[in-house]
Amino acid sequence: MSDTISEPVHAALRERAPLVQCITNYVSMDLAANVLNAAGASPAMVHDPREAAEFAALADAVVANIGTPSPRWIEGMTDAVSTAHDAGTPWVLDPVAVGATAFRREAVERLLEFEPTVIRGNASEILTIAARTASGRGVDSDASLAQVREHADELAKRTGAVVAVTGSEDYVTDGGREPVVLSGGDPRMPQIIALGCSLSALVGACLAVHDDAYDATAAALVMMSSAGERAGVEADGPGSLRWRLIDELSR
Amino acid sequence: MSDTISEPVHAALRERAPLVQCITNYVSMDLAANVLNAAGASPAMVHDPREAAEFAALADAVVANIGTPSPRWIEGMTDAVSTAHDAGTPWVLDPVAVGATAFRREAVERLLEFEPTVIRGNASEILTIAARTASGRGVDSDASLAQVREHADELAKRTGAVVAVTGSEDYVTDGGREPVVLSGGDPRMPQIIALGCSLSALVGACLAVHDDAYDATAAALVMMSSAGERAGVEADGPGSLRWRLIDELSR
Amino acid sequence: MSDTISEPVHAALRERAPLVQCITNYVSMDLAANVLNAAGASPAMVHDPREAAEFAALADAVVANIGTPSPRWIEGMTDAVSTAHDAGTPWVLDPVAVGATAFRREAVERLLEFEPTVIRGNASEILTIAARTASGRGVDSDASLAQVREHADELAKRTGAVVAVTGSEDYVTDGGREPVVLSGGDPRMPQIIALGCSLSALVGACLAVHDDAYDATAAALVMMSSAGERAGVEADGPGSLRWRLIDELSR
Repeated sequence: MSDTISEPVHAALRERAPLVQCITNYVSMDLAANVLNAAGASPAMVHDPREAAEFAALADAVVANIGTPSPRWIEGMTDAVSTAHDAGTPWVLDPVAVGATAFRREAVERLLEFEPTVIRGNASEILTIAARTASGRGVDSDASLAQVREHADELAKRTGAVVAVTGSEDYVTDGGREPVVLSGGDPRMPQIIALGCSLSALVGACLAVHDDAYDATAAALVMMSSAGERAGVEADGPGSLRWRLIDELSR
Repeated sequence: MSDTISEPVHAALRERAPLVQCITNYVSMDLAANVLNAAGASPAMVHDPREAAEFAALADAVVANIGTPSPRWIEGMTDAVSTAHDAGTPWVLDPVAVGATAFRREAVERLLEFEPTVIRGNASEILTIAARTASGRGVDSDASLAQVREHADELAKRTGAVVAVTGSEDYVTDGGREPVVLSGGDPRMPQIIALGCSLSALVGACLAVHDDAYDATAAALVMMSSAGERAGVEADGPGSLRWRLIDELSR
Repeated sequence: MSDTISEPVHAALRERAPLVQCITNYVSMDLAANVLNAAGASPAMVHDPREAAEFAALADAVVANIGTPSPRWIEGMTDAVSTAHDAGTPWVLDPVAVGATAFRREAVERLLEFEPTVIRGNASEILTIAARTASGRGVDSDASLAQVREHADELAKRTGAVVAVTGSEDYVTDGGREPVVLSGGDPRMPQIIALGCSLSALVGACLAVHDDAYDATAAALVMMSSAGERAGVEADGPGSLRWRLIDELSR
């Protein structure tokens, strides 16, 4: 299913160049913007409360990533996703390291009120939100996919969001349809910092050009995984894998 | 004209390594600093009101880029360019996506009071400032160069700044002399996120070592365009074009 | 000595993947995180006062880098290193351009109260702290290593920190043992922006897995220098040197 959906969605990305507002962490700014642009979307990093909502009204999708949060940035995110929610604009929540601190847990609780279209995280992050427990010390995933599937399904049902758990295997669920399990890519992809954040941004771009959130999410995951796989053929490590992946996404 | 000016200006950059204070957006920090350094300048990202003016007094040029603005950053920019203005230090305004929000338009209006030496933007951005209208939804340029030339000339006359409109063709005007029209580079350069921001930074560096702002601006544009053209020969996409461009600038 | 210590420390990094909290400047975020990850550590950029101390209690090491300071970030740094200090967690101070402004000098004075395990800087920065004078206009080093050695020794004695002065030659001292002088690497490494900041982060990672701060610091310096030297063989400039260095660190 997912192979056949990825190509038309990528073609739509290039044709429509959707404007994707990313309120994302400092570490991911550069890579996420380049990934979006290479894939055909138009990235815009607009975060401050002075303009976040105004810009969200123009955007085709919004991405909220709590990787390096501060109160003002969470306020800007809240403004943007509130606007997106009211306008029916799709938006993605990336709950980076949500289990690490109370501030992140509270931020995610608040953001969830605005009903994200998609929640994308690693197994630990999804488990933390699903179970409302504080586990996971950082951005690394300690939980296995097997542990998290049932929780992901429940989270999807409870929130109405498509939930994507990514790692060595990816899992996409909307709590109803047959979940998608994807593998592939290159085993060194997790060594590229912020590639997960960039994937969340790419999910946002795909949501902007394809109405079915479940298929759009799977399409983004396949797009990234395929590009990584092709990039990996000639790559000697995470440094070369990164620029080769951007080259591949731009093809 | 511009080819003959570019080489001596680049030689001066390497010899004098001017200190360029960049108050620039988060997305461009890494690339702009590396572009400046590769070309021979000494970049310094110093933005906060607690030190922006103090540092501007040491800097050989200041660059103010509103790509990811917040009130505090605009305050720091204002402090820095005010100091630069009073000291006769050249400074560059990069009005990223100025048409997108009221906050950006107000910020640019305020910054313009301090008489930038150069204003560099894409056609939409220059048109927005020149016409004081709100057009352009993001960082992408929808306006064509043909539409913007006359407005750029008028903007240069009104502000006293050299105005550089960059895109598939570049246009430099001071409202008086024969405008420079430049083409070249590599068609994939716009796919490198923040390359325009980095070009603004490079203009700042050139202003620091060459008194004629018009020639210094053209020199920076030629320098970037030539490096991009050489980098493009072996590049397979925007990922490889980026690091090859930095290698070329360092030659 | 340093060659024999570098390999077991690198092996320990890969085995234990220490969590390194970096409160670092915007320019260095991407490179520092990728350097840490490539070397085997787990980076986390967590800076805000709302969570910096809470996270520091989980971290295996903390790195405080004042490259793009603001009052709120310095507050977050202070919270984190205070927690690290009380918990006996090692932490690294990188006093970027400390001589440039009063705000930076005050920030460093405050941070020094929490007794950094290691202070890493270029000759100008170390001289500024050691002599409590205001020299050095930016991040570039004007002072020579010969001038700074004695001051570095005294700074180490006064603060109890290991002091690492890095440049074309590196110097590591604890004020007591025979200082280490290291050379090597690639002459183009200083052209990679934020590589020094990334080295400070790598020192933090090594401190987390090796109890002797003096040896851990030397190990980090050797690790970076060796990777740079190997990367330099095929590199054509700072652009290619950067990704090759990350590839080498990941080996």
